[in-house]
Amino acid sequence: MSESGEDALVAAIKKIAGIGGQGVRVGIGDDCAVLEPTPGALLLATTDLLVEDVHFRRRYATPADIGWKAIAVNLSDIASMGGRPRWALVALACPDDVEPAAVHEFYESARTLADAHDVAIVGGDTSASSAGWIVNVTLLGETTARTLLRRGARPGDVVAVTGTLGRSAAGLALLEHGGTAAGLDADRATAAVAAHLRPRPRVAEGRWLAGAAGVTAMMDLSDGLATDLPRLARESAVGARIDLPRVPVDATAQAVARALGADATVWAAGGGEDYELLLTCERAAFDRLADELAGASGVRLHAIGEVTAGRDVRFVDGAGAPVAVRAGFEHFRDGARR
Amino acid sequence: MSESGEDALVAAIKKIAGIGGQGVRVGIGDDCAVLEPTPGALLLATTDLLVEDVHFRRRYATPADIGWKAIAVNLSDIASMGGRPRWALVALACPDDVEPAAVHEFYESARTLADAHDVAIVGGDTSASSAGWIVNVTLLGETTARTLLRRGARPGDVVAVTGTLGRSAAGLALLEHGGTAAGLDADRATAAVAAHLRPRPRVAEGRWLAGAAGVTAMMDLSDGLATDLPRLARESAVGARIDLPRVPVDATAQAVARALGADATVWAAGGGEDYELLLTCERAAFDRLADELAGASGVRLHAIGEVTAGRDVRFVDGAGAPVAVRAGFEHFRDGARR
Repeated sequence: MSESGEDALVAAIKKIAGIGGQGVRVGIGDDCAVLEPTPGALLLATTDLLVEDVHFRRRYATPADIGWKAIAVNLSDIASMGGRPRWALVALACPDDVEPAAVHEFYESARTLADAHDVAIVGGDTSASSAGWIVNVTLLGETTARTLLRRGARPGDVVAVTGTLGRSAAGLALLEHGGTAAGLDADRATAAVAAHLRPRPRVAEGRWLAGAAGVTAMMDLSDGLATDLPRLARESAVGARIDLPRVPVDATAQAVARALGADATVWAAGGGEDYELLLTCERAAFDRLADELAGASGVRLHAIGEVTAGRDVRFVDGAGAPVAVRAGFEHFRDGARR
Repeated sequence: MSESGEDALVAAIKKIAGIGGQGVRVGIGDDCAVLEPTPGALLLATTDLLVEDVHFRRRYATPADIGWKAIAVNLSDIASMGGRPRWALVALACPDDVEPAAVHEFYESARTLADAHDVAIVGGDTSASSAGWIVNVTLLGETTARTLLRRGARPGDVVAVTGTLGRSAAGLALLEHGGTAAGLDADRATAAVAAHLRPRPRVAEGRWLAGAAGVTAMMDLSDGLATDLPRLARESAVGARIDLPRVPVDATAQAVARALGADATVWAAGGGEDYELLLTCERAAFDRLADELAGASGVRLHAIGEVTAGRDVRFVDGAGAPVAVRAGFEHFRDGARR
């Protein structure tokens, strides 16, 4: 876009992003945002880069989906530390022939999710792209409660997850199958696709867990249990044993798997982008945490295994025999390699 | 890259980025950086997205150049508010076949410039790219002095710039001409290319100016005087008259222009990426500011015109007649449109 086109775009974005919010001294339109952190609060900062044909495909994801997801994945990082999200910087590069309405939809959807979490969009960048849509969101948050890190898990702790797993991978499989499957209930199909395109990060749950006694480590499940748990274990210098039958496989994922002839357990353990929280807690604290979290937020906490001494992360079946779980959700790997 | 490849890359980056710095509670390796702002300080936040074939060309810019520039352009935004840069988040997407050494050089160069300004690289993101190199840097800074905004200029104020202009555009022209030109001194050629590939933001000067009495508005010159001054004027709801003969045309740019048969004044007024500071100040304060800034930093401040009532931004020649100046440095526009 031309420089004057860029100025017009910034003016339009400024309108969509709103005129600031609590703690915003200067928002979009100057060289930096000027923010007023709460004195004594620690600042959390996270950034995610989403690239077309690596993290999303335009034939599946609308501009509104992309805007939503770019905010969501960063919210999830703040959630996983137990923080309060505050301010977002949104950078977008698009091909020159992009429709202004598409850019508008992108920012409006980003704003909708940001607003729902009291996050102000305070700055960003706009640019032409020679290479499809590229989005970078940086999210700043605050934490006054205890900050939960990946390190802190101790042998004997329970490994637990919020909610259920596998729905996002089911949604992606369904999109790759044309969005429907014979014998699959339409509501189930919609729910699976929505889980993939419009994830809902566990922000309130993360804050609650950070304030609760007995939680020892936490992170969010962005790349999938089989990839993310070894990261938590490595930072904590421990191992873990996961009882595969206890992993809470999402019912919608199961329905999609039946319709597609796939295995929902593989999606739940190896698939990514569920944005649920993975945590460890003291054994004696688990029942209380699960009861109180369910009471506070309606979200179930599932114990799926335990932290072990040593450094091995293993998945075992009902008889205790090791099971190989494909590690990692590799986004659109084949597409990216083309 | 695979997930395990990504983990290895993050480990390597963590090593290059170092183990933190002042105010860093948790750096690279967890879901967010945890930062400890100085109580009472305001936070500055800026982000810039650099896309291959839009903001840089790989045949001109090495990975080390890209890493340097990504930090530099963000430092310049903090400088333009008079802030103290503190923490950087660096996100990089590269094609799958990138050499690990290239990624290493990118981060090492980013770190070199960050270190020079006491900035810690505290987080980021890594990703595959289907579309060349993509870099996003977010820089956080603090300001305890007065924060200088684009708004604040008043009719009668002097318009001034630090240093000289046009060297970066000269460097780009030279690169497009093969890096040399008949009759051009080799040192001049090197200096011009370096100005384009490795800009040096005016961080110390920005902080000094923010603390000095009489400065009314400030921004950095990233897109060029003819594009950026109207932005400052718009935010301040004023106009401006620039006396083109007073615009300090860089001597190296003049040498390159002579060798290429180009016009260095066009580069100085219309070219971008000099990353000098553009400011307005009270008329009575200019001489003192210029003297004291030269004493404090060795950098000259040049008066180039004045702020006017109304909303017009005009360039005039020595006789006061209007001159049309091509507005804007349009990066690699043609390349981006291919």
